[in-house]
Amino acid sequence: MNECIELARIVESRQALLFGEFTLSSGLKSNYYLDMRRLLGDYKAYRGALELLASKAESAFKDFDTVVGVATGGIPWAAGLALIMGKSLAYVRLERKGHGTLGVVEGAPPYGKCIVVDDVATTGASLESAVEVLRRHCEVVGVLVIVDRLQGAEERMRKANVRMESVATVEELFECIKSLE
Amino acid sequence: MNECIELARIVESRQALLFGEFTLSSGLKSNYYLDMRRLLGDYKAYRGALELLASKAESAFKDFDTVVGVATGGIPWAAGLALIMGKSLAYVRLERKGHGTLGVVEGAPPYGKCIVVDDVATTGASLESAVEVLRRHCEVVGVLVIVDRLQGAEERMRKANVRMESVATVEELFECIKSLE
Repeated sequence: MNECIELARIVESRQALLFGEFTLSSGLKSNYYLDMRRLLGDYKAYRGALELLASKAESAFKDFDTVVGVATGGIPWAAGLALIMGKSLAYVRLERKGHGTLGVVEGAPPYGKCIVVDDVATTGASLESAVEVLRRHCEVVGVLVIVDRLQGAEERMRKANVRMESVATVEELFECIKSLE
Repeated sequence: MNECIELARIVESRQALLFGEFTLSSGLKSNYYLDMRRLLGDYKAYRGALELLASKAESAFKDFDTVVGVATGGIPWAAGLALIMGKSLAYVRLERKGHGTLGVVEGAPPYGKCIVVDDVATTGASLESAVEVLRRHCEVVGVLVIVDRLQGAEERMRKANVRMESVATVEELFECIKSLE
């Protein structure tokens, strides 16, 4: 719970939780939006959230070689995580092409055991595409996000045989933000 | 010169200098390609190149608040630099639209004095677009790249009143790689 409180503090300090009418990248409508990129704009917030990610990565996926970010939102998180944990870094660009989504791995192909990192999980569609393309290169041992919006991603990952972990679910985060007041 | 030798060692260790027929993102043809993303795939290479960038940033642009990466190639470098130096981070996405290039600043708008970071500079066209959009938000005190391919970027930046610095020009890098043999 401490990690959830810490995340709540960081999110609030950067006003990264917005209420209104939003269309998410998944196409879903939502009355709230978590703009985790706002965290990057403050060194302490960025570093703090990275420490939370690193602690979760360590406890959930002890042994891995490569951190893979989902472009573009996941790259600063994957990069920071790789630097903090002394791991290799790669990233995947996803492109919507006609009927589906195409994934392109950039730079040196990820090797060994890898984890996929993104800021927020919604339906998990883009995470699934990333996992699919990565499996040609490395053993995907897990997916890690800062916040799980609880809109199907975990189930989708389970069907794809990947464990998904988050620093907090959106329900936990809302609770923790409330408890700050 | 030591920094150039160090960069040469890193580039060689990751086989990031490729010879062949390439079309660069600027549209120019080239018989060589520097794939700096290959450096990310090895923690020591990534960290080593970041230290070189940080040292150059410190000597060239002493005082700045925000590091801005040019998506997607510049983001891992800007992110690492912000973390090493304790600065704020932002990034710019450039989109080719009809007649020109549109720049979108992601996340919290960069503030104060900012520097623009990318891996390689060629003609400087995308750096110029990034500088243009950033000037609405922050005082752009410089542009920093790992390698300057010497194809017009520095002159273009000079015309835009921005100082450009690189860890090495491609001429220096080739010399330093030769001296390793």
